[in-house]
Amino acid sequence: MTNVNAFLDSVKFDKEGLVPAIAQDARSGKVLMLAYMNRESLEITLKEGKMCYWSRSRKELWRKGATSGNHQEVKEIFIDCDGDALVFKVEQTGGACHAGYDSCFFRKVENDGSFKIVGEMTFDAEEAYRKK
Amino acid sequence: MTNVNAFLDSVKFDKEGLVPAIAQDARSGKVLMLAYMNRESLEITLKEGKMCYWSRSRKELWRKGATSGNHQEVKEIFIDCDGDALVFKVEQTGGACHAGYDSCFFRKVENDGSFKIVGEMTFDAEEAYRKK
Repeated sequence: MTNVNAFLDSVKFDKEGLVPAIAQDARSGKVLMLAYMNRESLEITLKEGKMCYWSRSRKELWRKGATSGNHQEVKEIFIDCDGDALVFKVEQTGGACHAGYDSCFFRKVENDGSFKIVGEMTFDAEEAYRKK
Repeated sequence: MTNVNAFLDSVKFDKEGLVPAIAQDARSGKVLMLAYMNRESLEITLKEGKMCYWSRSRKELWRKGATSGNHQEVKEIFIDCDGDALVFKVEQTGGACHAGYDSCFFRKVENDGSFKIVGEMTFDAEEAYRKK
């Protein structure tokens, strides 16, 4: 991206310096996950072409796939009308969810309020996150 | 929904009492918008079957389509692994964006960092939001 700063400057980060980033499967259109980026992680995402989030729980840069190998290669980026949310169409390796599913939204809410597992198990989470 | 509370209790609202809600077109899979719900607006959404958000700027319940007529009828609901984000597959009347587009993510970020309008203009925003 030749003029990264023009884009970065137009993103409205919240008071904690974060913007929600939706990762959507470029092929199927399935929503894979919602996580957050700060300016630095967004800059890294643009530079490296792979999703890098800011982990709010660990308070550190989160290069998706660094441990599991389940990278998300960026194909297209969209910004919303208010500039305070981003959609990334990505090519997902393995699966997006730490639980082993293709998408983090693997639970459908049924009419009785219960959850039904509808996600596809696409990798062995235990193996992927084993300390290497 | 027969057991609304079981579902509501499993949603992790943030410290401001909000959860991000992604509205996705049930047919095309297009991400239409990202907005927020508090417990009350989520409860209304479940009860009325149409998306009701919490407007962070106006600090009030936001029944999507109340002014514009552009309702979002809920078809399916998904909750993510952490319980802190929701995806609603909806049937969108008119368009989602107050600017007249089908989706709020109507701007694609080009390789040079500039924006290209890729959204489809689906309704007359001036007419839709005219004080009646």
